Amino acid sequence: MKKIQIGLLGMGRIGKIHFQNIQQYFSNVATVVAVADPLIDVPAIQKQFSSIFFTNDSKEVVLSKDVEAVLICTPTSSHAELLELAIQSGKSVFCEKPMDLSLDRTKALAELAKSTNTKLMMGFNRRFDPDFLHARESVKKGTIGDVQIVKITSRDPGLPPVDYIKNSGGLFMDMAIHDFDMACYIMNKKVAEVFAKGAVRIDKAVGDAGDIDTALTTLTFEDGTYAVIDNSRKAVYGYDQRIEIFGNDGMIQVDNNQHNRNVLYNQSGIHYALPLDFFMDRYAKSYLNEMDFFISALNNNTDMPVGGDDALQATKIAVAAKKSMLEGRPVKLSEIG
Amino acid sequence: MKKIQIGLLGMGRIGKIHFQNIQQYFSNVATVVAVADPLIDVPAIQKQFSSIFFTNDSKEVVLSKDVEAVLICTPTSSHAELLELAIQSGKSVFCEKPMDLSLDRTKALAELAKSTNTKLMMGFNRRFDPDFLHARESVKKGTIGDVQIVKITSRDPGLPPVDYIKNSGGLFMDMAIHDFDMACYIMNKKVAEVFAKGAVRIDKAVGDAGDIDTALTTLTFEDGTYAVIDNSRKAVYGYDQRIEIFGNDGMIQVDNNQHNRNVLYNQSGIHYALPLDFFMDRYAKSYLNEMDFFISALNNNTDMPVGGDDALQATKIAVAAKKSMLEGRPVKLSEIG
Amino acid sequence: MKKIQIGLLGMGRIGKIHFQNIQQYFSNVATVVAVADPLIDVPAIQKQFSSIFFTNDSKEVVLSKDVEAVLICTPTSSHAELLELAIQSGKSVFCEKPMDLSLDRTKALAELAKSTNTKLMMGFNRRFDPDFLHARESVKKGTIGDVQIVKITSRDPGLPPVDYIKNSGGLFMDMAIHDFDMACYIMNKKVAEVFAKGAVRIDKAVGDAGDIDTALTTLTFEDGTYAVIDNSRKAVYGYDQRIEIFGNDGMIQVDNNQHNRNVLYNQSGIHYALPLDFFMDRYAKSYLNEMDFFISALNNNTDMPVGGDDALQATKIAVAAKKSMLEGRPVKLSEIG
Amino acid sequence: MKKIQIGLLGMGRIGKIHFQNIQQYFSNVATVVAVADPLIDVPAIQKQFSSIFFTNDSKEVVLSKDVEAVLICTPTSSHAELLELAIQSGKSVFCEKPMDLSLDRTKALAELAKSTNTKLMMGFNRRFDPDFLHARESVKKGTIGDVQIVKITSRDPGLPPVDYIKNSGGLFMDMAIHDFDMACYIMNKKVAEVFAKGAVRIDKAVGDAGDIDTALTTLTFEDGTYAVIDNSRKAVYGYDQRIEIFGNDGMIQVDNNQHNRNVLYNQSGIHYALPLDFFMDRYAKSYLNEMDFFISALNNNTDMPVGGDDALQATKIAVAAKKSMLEGRPVKLSEIG
Repeated sequence: MKKIQIGLLGMGRIGKIHFQNIQQYFSNVATVVAVADPLIDVPAIQKQFSSIFFTNDSKEVVLSKDVEAVLICTPTSSHAELLELAIQSGKSVFCEKPMDLSLDRTKALAELAKSTNTKLMMGFNRRFDPDFLHARESVKKGTIGDVQIVKITSRDPGLPPVDYIKNSGGLFMDMAIHDFDMACYIMNKKVAEVFAKGAVRIDKAVGDAGDIDTALTTLTFEDGTYAVIDNSRKAVYGYDQRIEIFGNDGMIQVDNNQHNRNVLYNQSGIHYALPLDFFMDRYAKSYLNEMDFFISALNNNTDMPVGGDDALQATKIAVAAKKSMLEGRPVKLSEIG
Repeated sequence: MKKIQIGLLGMGRIGKIHFQNIQQYFSNVATVVAVADPLIDVPAIQKQFSSIFFTNDSKEVVLSKDVEAVLICTPTSSHAELLELAIQSGKSVFCEKPMDLSLDRTKALAELAKSTNTKLMMGFNRRFDPDFLHARESVKKGTIGDVQIVKITSRDPGLPPVDYIKNSGGLFMDMAIHDFDMACYIMNKKVAEVFAKGAVRIDKAVGDAGDIDTALTTLTFEDGTYAVIDNSRKAVYGYDQRIEIFGNDGMIQVDNNQHNRNVLYNQSGIHYALPLDFFMDRYAKSYLNEMDFFISALNNNTDMPVGGDDALQATKIAVAAKKSMLEGRPVKLSEIG
Repeated sequence: MKKIQIGLLGMGRIGKIHFQNIQQYFSNVATVVAVADPLIDVPAIQKQFSSIFFTNDSKEVVLSKDVEAVLICTPTSSHAELLELAIQSGKSVFCEKPMDLSLDRTKALAELAKSTNTKLMMGFNRRFDPDFLHARESVKKGTIGDVQIVKITSRDPGLPPVDYIKNSGGLFMDMAIHDFDMACYIMNKKVAEVFAKGAVRIDKAVGDAGDIDTALTTLTFEDGTYAVIDNSRKAVYGYDQRIEIFGNDGMIQVDNNQHNRNVLYNQSGIHYALPLDFFMDRYAKSYLNEMDFFISALNNNTDMPVGGDDALQATKIAVAAKKSMLEGRPVKLSEIG
Repeated sequence: MKKIQIGLLGMGRIGKIHFQNIQQYFSNVATVVAVADPLIDVPAIQKQFSSIFFTNDSKEVVLSKDVEAVLICTPTSSHAELLELAIQSGKSVFCEKPMDLSLDRTKALAELAKSTNTKLMMGFNRRFDPDFLHARESVKKGTIGDVQIVKITSRDPGLPPVDYIKNSGGLFMDMAIHDFDMACYIMNKKVAEVFAKGAVRIDKAVGDAGDIDTALTTLTFEDGTYAVIDNSRKAVYGYDQRIEIFGNDGMIQVDNNQHNRNVLYNQSGIHYALPLDFFMDRYAKSYLNEMDFFISALNNNTDMPVGGDDALQATKIAVAAKKSMLEGRPVKLSEIG
């Protein structure tokens, strides 16, 4: 089988994860042929990986004839431009979320991808977490009947730097968007209305940067079913990622993944291990699985499991959530875009 | 010590629980001297309990000189009248929730109780559940720091008869009111705003009766912290009563009480027992504890742990929730009453 | 229905439990008519319970014509004599374990009870714990097929006083005997061989008193299946009472009963509540249930659920365990008595 | 850094695991330069991995000048001969357990490895399971004080083929040996005495093959502390691998690793996922970690974490266990070899 020739843009935390996963697990079906990052020391890294082309210029990689598929793992601000270029160059694309902080731009890009029949997969990695995947499969099979409500708890283990927050698009767009996508994914329905509350509870600096660190969002789907999502930028006990799905035939809970299965009994209580540290650990398998899905879809010429429309829906919800918070009222998704 | 002389109104499910608890556990500190219920066969029951006065007329008990404290366990529609009479007769009162389905009447009664210095305890029994009590004590001690959000799941094991629903005041007033009170109790704060969604998911007959069977309510407290409550009239796996409290120093979860601590491993999985059946089982200790609190407060002449103001606050929230659902917007508590 | 007239011998910890349970729960079917304890202040307690006859002399109660059934809750050293007297006086008997520390005496008493058709129930209270009862019922129904091994963990929360230990008959006879009975009860089989190890791990004073505080016992039943029991006089995390039953169609585990269902998440871990403190708490329901069984068997004239033969079997195992430990070899039960 | 040049003997299930792990995870520090297996199609596999030398002859690999370290993953019957040859050829060795079914041969090989200062690591992979490793570290740090008893449950999900059983050395040598090693590893002590019981409970064919399928073994360490291990060749609910460690300051439990963290609530109960299937899944990380330890010890010239003496001790326990079972008495380890 011919191997997919991959061009990787961005060698930050996420870029490195994908790079290593492809090298370790998918070397039979894909090859990283080119890597761009403005911050890498090209000669140094070139020595280490002699068969890969390295550059500081993302466009060089996108435009390279050797590259069939582009992975966009650069900072959010450059996603749109690179995505557009990649589409126009006829490449398949895997793009970390979001496409863009602007809804209009996101919409245009989703339409462009569609009209050009571009193979586009958006990096909503949590869909590929084995536990969430299993929950979703159970729902699909009807294990709990018709779903009435999905409840998502999503709390980070600590505040990101304020500089990050300033350019993040805000908690709804940067953080909760994963949960909005998850709610839609589990429900397999469209959202009709969003009601969101937000507050600064952890650090005044977040408020000074124009953002919130705590949120509570209620989604109403088109058929009148619900999702409720609570977010916090800081849970002292670690990265808290849980889902509960209630249907007329039962309930599914997905609990956190913990550091170990050791239990300590002593005079002060019965003690279990904390959740895995942060997304790099907690979602290690998700990143692996999503790349597997991407490469397989390219190799088998099948549909991408999560594409531009999904990104657009999640982005719309994030925009609506912010609007709802600011205006103190439920916002219909039809008001957005 | 002199024993508190109790007059019991209503020998339905809850009345019987209180009757038996007093006989079995509090015989040293309290005596049921009179019981009224329009449906009891007075001569028959009189034979069984010769030292107690039985009647079909509640007023006779309220007005009896032998009765110091009245327990109102009659149907909701008679609460207000009996409560008023008891207050005017100078009795101490334990009253099952709600005082009345009308907010105005509730307000008037709460004020009457206050202006007359009546010892009034409202039967929000869940406050006295050992697990919830422990959670509340932990919050009070600062175990999890400042609370940011309280999440309550409250699902009944099955629909009550439609006739019951018709006279219940609706899901918010009849069922969720317990959860509204619990949220306020855990938080020890006043609610500022309510946003509620409601739907008929279980049985069309509920909708025909003018009620809902499924709800999702968001409370915002005066300091901007949140509670979220999801209700269902029917969880196929039984009576689901859980609370999660998240603060800046940690989280407390209170899980269901199960039938037993047996775990079965077999080819199809690892199986645990279902939650206790319904409030009679699940809250058996709550009913016991609340009566203990009531009698102790009378004997020690101390404040009642939950009184007219608490009932009023919970009732206002229920009224606001219904209004919010009907008008599709968040409702300030200041709009109510 | 006529109420069973009960004479209670011994008002120590266990005697008081039974006394209160009968007063509170079984007043419709049984009455305590006489109580003996050498340490009670007869005039003082007589004032409190005017309808009951109190005395310091156990024999007076056993021989009283008013007494149909005797509860023997005195110190172990007096069990045999009182049991014999009660049998000879034609009384039904509930006797706390053991009948006697001597195997010969135990045997003689078991035979006497049988030859006289005495209704005798031995106080192996754990059989009536709701969780263990449920496990046993599941085994009986064949839920896990043929049982291959039963594993019992039984650890006290702390050492009893050395004076208690000196007169206790030793760990096997005093403490492990409950677990030996439980193993036989779950298995519903006879033990063929015992191999036991014992050590002093907690306090040298136990060894000086001629006893051990830690033991590991292997039982082989007549059909070659196993039980393994580990005992300790002191688990710092509290009273540890667990059972695991493995069969060819599955496994049943019975976990500890904990103080509450609260879970605390904080920086140091996820924390659950400790097991219930000691037998008075942990087995509160067992004591209640066993008295229910005793009184019901008398009222319905049915077989006692645990009688002299069961006590004899457990005693034999305890004797064999001690012999095995001292001689460093497996001991056949046929070698005993 | 120079990469360790590895020669791999045996490309069965375990050999393949090590091969893939080295290729994927340790390519920076180690290279498989040669592979032998009598069953591989050399020309076919050679095409796939052009830089590796393949052969059907194990000796060719052992003797190759290019090979510094040999991994022995062949069937048990060839371990001793290949291990001896590797030692005599001055190679470092990783050898799957056991060295040999004969105790004398095992002893001689352990001594040979020692006298020649050979770097020898024995494949007791479970020591490197993250959960067990964590438990052992906790014990070492004194988290639960002095350990009094270790309890190991080790049950396979199903019987191996009878042909496998015939050549396996029997349940104690083939299966329980892992648990014997684990008990010694957790305790970090020497065993003084073994008492074992064994039976055929699952399939008569096992007995016809001269083996047992069910065992219960009690170990007494030199300081009088205990371990108890129960084994079964077939647990219908899957691969059951648990440890409980009780000390004077607390208890550590290590529970099974499950397929997922999904919990299903429905009318029949609350259901969790089964344990991971078998050692290939359950101990995937153990195999990875042990290879990491082996390669690191070679690269850093440090001591091997588990060597010939450990294998000898575990083998002696297995021999003693069988002797104990056959002779119906506790066997001192000093009686063995």
